[in-house]
Amino acid sequence: MTSPFERRIAACQDQLAEEGADLTVCFPSPNLTYLTGFSESPSERHLLLFVPRAGEPALVAPAMYEAQLATLPIADLQLRCWTDDDDPLEDVADVLAAYSLGDGDEATVLVDDRMWATFTQDLRDLLSDAAFGLASTALEPLRIRKDDVELAALRRAGALADRVALEIRRRGEELVGMTESELAAEIDRLLVAEGGEEPAFETIVAAGPNGARPHHHSGSRRIEAGGPIVLDFGAFVSADLEAGTGRYPGDQTRTIVIGDPPAEYERVHETVREAQQAAIDAVEPGVTAGTIDRAARSVIESAGYGDAFVHRTGHGVGLEVHEPPYITAGNDRELEPGMVFSVEPGIYLEGKFGVRIEDLVVVTEDGAERLNDTPRGWETEL
Amino acid sequence: MTSPFERRIAACQDQLAEEGADLTVCFPSPNLTYLTGFSESPSERHLLLFVPRAGEPALVAPAMYEAQLATLPIADLQLRCWTDDDDPLEDVADVLAAYSLGDGDEATVLVDDRMWATFTQDLRDLLSDAAFGLASTALEPLRIRKDDVELAALRRAGALADRVALEIRRRGEELVGMTESELAAEIDRLLVAEGGEEPAFETIVAAGPNGARPHHHSGSRRIEAGGPIVLDFGAFVSADLEAGTGRYPGDQTRTIVIGDPPAEYERVHETVREAQQAAIDAVEPGVTAGTIDRAARSVIESAGYGDAFVHRTGHGVGLEVHEPPYITAGNDRELEPGMVFSVEPGIYLEGKFGVRIEDLVVVTEDGAERLNDTPRGWETEL
Repeated sequence: MTSPFERRIAACQDQLAEEGADLTVCFPSPNLTYLTGFSESPSERHLLLFVPRAGEPALVAPAMYEAQLATLPIADLQLRCWTDDDDPLEDVADVLAAYSLGDGDEATVLVDDRMWATFTQDLRDLLSDAAFGLASTALEPLRIRKDDVELAALRRAGALADRVALEIRRRGEELVGMTESELAAEIDRLLVAEGGEEPAFETIVAAGPNGARPHHHSGSRRIEAGGPIVLDFGAFVSADLEAGTGRYPGDQTRTIVIGDPPAEYERVHETVREAQQAAIDAVEPGVTAGTIDRAARSVIESAGYGDAFVHRTGHGVGLEVHEPPYITAGNDRELEPGMVFSVEPGIYLEGKFGVRIEDLVVVTEDGAERLNDTPRGWETEL
Repeated sequence: MTSPFERRIAACQDQLAEEGADLTVCFPSPNLTYLTGFSESPSERHLLLFVPRAGEPALVAPAMYEAQLATLPIADLQLRCWTDDDDPLEDVADVLAAYSLGDGDEATVLVDDRMWATFTQDLRDLLSDAAFGLASTALEPLRIRKDDVELAALRRAGALADRVALEIRRRGEELVGMTESELAAEIDRLLVAEGGEEPAFETIVAAGPNGARPHHHSGSRRIEAGGPIVLDFGAFVSADLEAGTGRYPGDQTRTIVIGDPPAEYERVHETVREAQQAAIDAVEPGVTAGTIDRAARSVIESAGYGDAFVHRTGHGVGLEVHEPPYITAGNDRELEPGMVFSVEPGIYLEGKFGVRIEDLVVVTEDGAERLNDTPRGWETEL
């Protein structure tokens, strides 16, 4: 019985062969977590995973992690731990020497997209004849299609965010008088109470004219009846990976109004809702990411609000809250089953209000499955 | 009147000239904060500072930061903000073209030690004839000697940690029965109440045998009378930089016992205390970092505990909690006035207890100034 990580490492090796690359080297990053289930912050200490096209992967790591790393469910992982008395570059050199990279020809080494320059410089010094590229060349094609373990976690993260979204909407008039920050803190509390590890990003509560800023930081503005409120949040949930530490985010947005909305609001809200539906209706394998962006943007442009939709239509989610595929104008990346991304058009009217509606979707064999499914209207009474 | 950042950028340019380098490129990191006062997390969005050996520095950044960056107190900074509709690489290429790097010869470009490979690969593609090195070549010699603004912040961080250390010691028997986690949370609360921005690292409360692990994570073990407690903490304080966001950490350790210590404890505690004093007595300009490590280690070895001192004697502190100079065996880096580092020998007896005593010191013209100065004994009654 192979673990998810053994399957992913084997798939990475297949991808290296397909790309004509000899080795990928990962640094603490989502790539490392994806391949091993181990998660740590980048630091000046050498912690490097080597996955050769053929042969055993190796992990060079500080000795303080040895007990934890020895339990990783990767049968043939060669673990080399170094202490403060050792020179970790000797371990790196030993690992590289054992792989006989390139077999006489120039080797191609793919380094983690997030590897610090101090480590890539070391690798360039040790492999002075190699050509260097980025690990995403081999890993993005794997990570962009979520496997069953990942999809299960993303569905749970979606359901969790939905429970909190429904609870907030249900509170209706109780929200009036709270500051944005107070409501954001209450949402964060609910996200954890419902089983989330922590908020997946800074929860956005943007009241009244603050909603016109897509990246507003919740502040001291109080929630008023009749003022639109943009609510954008989600929490990380752990994937069921046994020894692994991978976690996956929720991310949804609703824009609600307590009481009667301002002039023009209903037309704007309905436009965004139609744009979001049009984009999701357009999702199917083989269609480009740019086509999805166009589907949302066309609806908003036709309604005369084209200039007020100031950001991309969506972004992929996985181990990262923002990752490929990016749903942007002109992106000709074709959708494939298992891709997961947000569809979140918005209209932002400076000085007045903003509306954004966001769901995560997974591409299926013939369309899209929403991971969020709470009401998309603005009314708090259901 | 030049700002601290203008002075630092000018010093960086002098250093580039001295190293024969043409340009340094920084990414969100302590280097960027040091040179501009701007602090942000690394992300996939292009945010790059260019400091040429001669000429105006340039900052390429996402448009969302434009208002904030326009207020940086750096008179001749060329600010180029890009939106989601732009290709930031065009800005990068324009900036590089304007510098006429290398003037016909091969240019030398120093990239931030923490720059992600995805960005260094872009720079290598744009500057295919350049030689690449690390920004620390130019910046470490500057950052390792703290300027007056930095020393003032580090002194405040030291005094703040000292107030909390005294308060905890004063509580004495009140601590008995608390879990490590509860006491760590109380220390964190006090650090912020005393004016800290946030704990500078995970506060260590290691009770009884847990003290034998230098990097113990505070847990559910309860504090007992007669059990040694290692208390290692500090908070960040803001430097007085007007528009800048630089912040500097405190970091001190005391090991206390409530009531009567176990067998062997007093001898171990006194050994660590003597080792720390010997190391600090050895500090003066021109002495190597390795000499300081040796001074501490000799005392501990002579007492027969050499194998139980399992880590380096100290680390530099500044914008980073761990930075050069590292006080390690054999490090032949010579000390200079203005360097700030920890002196923290320890003895760790597995299954029994551990003792560590740590102060930050600044190298003066003729010795060392301690930034921490609370009692170093184990007794809680002063």
